[in-house]
Amino acid sequence: MGGVLVIWLLLFAGAVELSLGISHEIHLLRPQLGSSGHHVPGLSCLSWRLGVEAHNIIEWSTVPQACESYVGHYMLGHQYRKDSRAVVYEALTYAQSLKLAVDGKDIWVFDVDETSPSNLPYYAKHGFRVEAYNSTQFNNWVYEGKAPALPESLKLYKKLLSLGIKAVFITGRPEAQRNVTAANLRNVGYHTWEKLILKGSSAGTIVVYKSNERKKLKKSGYRIIDNIGDQWSDILGTNTENRTFKLSNPMYYIS
Amino acid sequence: MGGVLVIWLLLFAGAVELSLGISHEIHLLRPQLGSSGHHVPGLSCLSWRLGVEAHNIIEWSTVPQACESYVGHYMLGHQYRKDSRAVVYEALTYAQSLKLAVDGKDIWVFDVDETSPSNLPYYAKHGFRVEAYNSTQFNNWVYEGKAPALPESLKLYKKLLSLGIKAVFITGRPEAQRNVTAANLRNVGYHTWEKLILKGSSAGTIVVYKSNERKKLKKSGYRIIDNIGDQWSDILGTNTENRTFKLSNPMYYIS
Repeated sequence: MGGVLVIWLLLFAGAVELSLGISHEIHLLRPQLGSSGHHVPGLSCLSWRLGVEAHNIIEWSTVPQACESYVGHYMLGHQYRKDSRAVVYEALTYAQSLKLAVDGKDIWVFDVDETSPSNLPYYAKHGFRVEAYNSTQFNNWVYEGKAPALPESLKLYKKLLSLGIKAVFITGRPEAQRNVTAANLRNVGYHTWEKLILKGSSAGTIVVYKSNERKKLKKSGYRIIDNIGDQWSDILGTNTENRTFKLSNPMYYIS
Repeated sequence: MGGVLVIWLLLFAGAVELSLGISHEIHLLRPQLGSSGHHVPGLSCLSWRLGVEAHNIIEWSTVPQACESYVGHYMLGHQYRKDSRAVVYEALTYAQSLKLAVDGKDIWVFDVDETSPSNLPYYAKHGFRVEAYNSTQFNNWVYEGKAPALPESLKLYKKLLSLGIKAVFITGRPEAQRNVTAANLRNVGYHTWEKLILKGSSAGTIVVYKSNERKKLKKSGYRIIDNIGDQWSDILGTNTENRTFKLSNPMYYIS
């Protein structure tokens, strides 16, 4: 292995298998000072991740190489799930505090990738995006339609439905992926929605695209109760309404 | 001590003494299962702090009691300083990437408390805001004028000045504290500024007050390069311009 110590993280693989429905996967995390790990002096991966989540660190293209192992352990370990749970707890507490009209016009906007279904099984095999984005490989994964639900988001989705709030999915996935996306969502528990909005040929950033779609929803008479996403571009921009919720994602940044 | 195990964290006290100029202080952190610590099932203090920094958890009044020890160790330990360093690194990288006119009209807006000077010596004695805010006690501390500089912010301040960017401080402190605030800033290394703006009798939230003050600055011909603060209310609102930077503060929330 050329001096590279390969660590088979059976423990982590097992934890993910239980909770995100991945089977027959052995996740390979390269050691911090192995092939991935030229040392970056002074870089605290924890500070980097906090900087990403607090929107201090923006427009980055790949995870710092020295943080591959850190990000991998975070995503496959307990803390990512605890962090997701804390976000969903806040979101649900907020939703339950509202006086809703229950007239079918209250909607909650969900992002898709890394919010509703999770592509973690894919990213676990591709260095948690320490590797540059490969659209062919990623689209092959998408067309398999096997992305598991992020359990915390699915819980939120179900509880919102029980409150009479409808789900609208707005995703940067292209229109060509409508069928596989719909099937994947249904297969993992997101059985119904008011709209599933995919990105057509519209130019511009995700912030602009999503802002425009929210504007259209409001013009159609919907009331946006809230937005949840793993990217700042899911929740910045206009027509976001009162509250927004940001799930963790230290793997990639979309502007 | 009534069954409460008191821990004298000499190590942490020493670390703060070195870096934040606090002497003759012994910081007392209560153990998580002692007087402060009824156990809150399922609460991850790390997730709580992340939720605060990512603006998922808002309008909270005090640190959860179970997180007093966690927040105390964070604030007095290395991670708070590493996190501050990472924010300042990003801010400085951004500032250095700009083509500046160097005509004296480029300004950088700094918040005061927990951004430029730090009241950590005060909060370390008051349970890191697991206790409710006591304005009399806090104002007594302010009038002592002894808040040390947050070293990372002072470094940013100095480098910005060397780039030809001027500092404007906008603070929620009242006008009555102008002299002591100015003296405190100067004493710890913030020797000069274009404006020091304190909150007069204007009603409304800090978001509105700071947005209005930024608007006035722009009308006066200044170009706001950036904002830095430890509260979301320092950087949300209008006229924030291109980038904003959020320093950590898990001790209190100001809307």
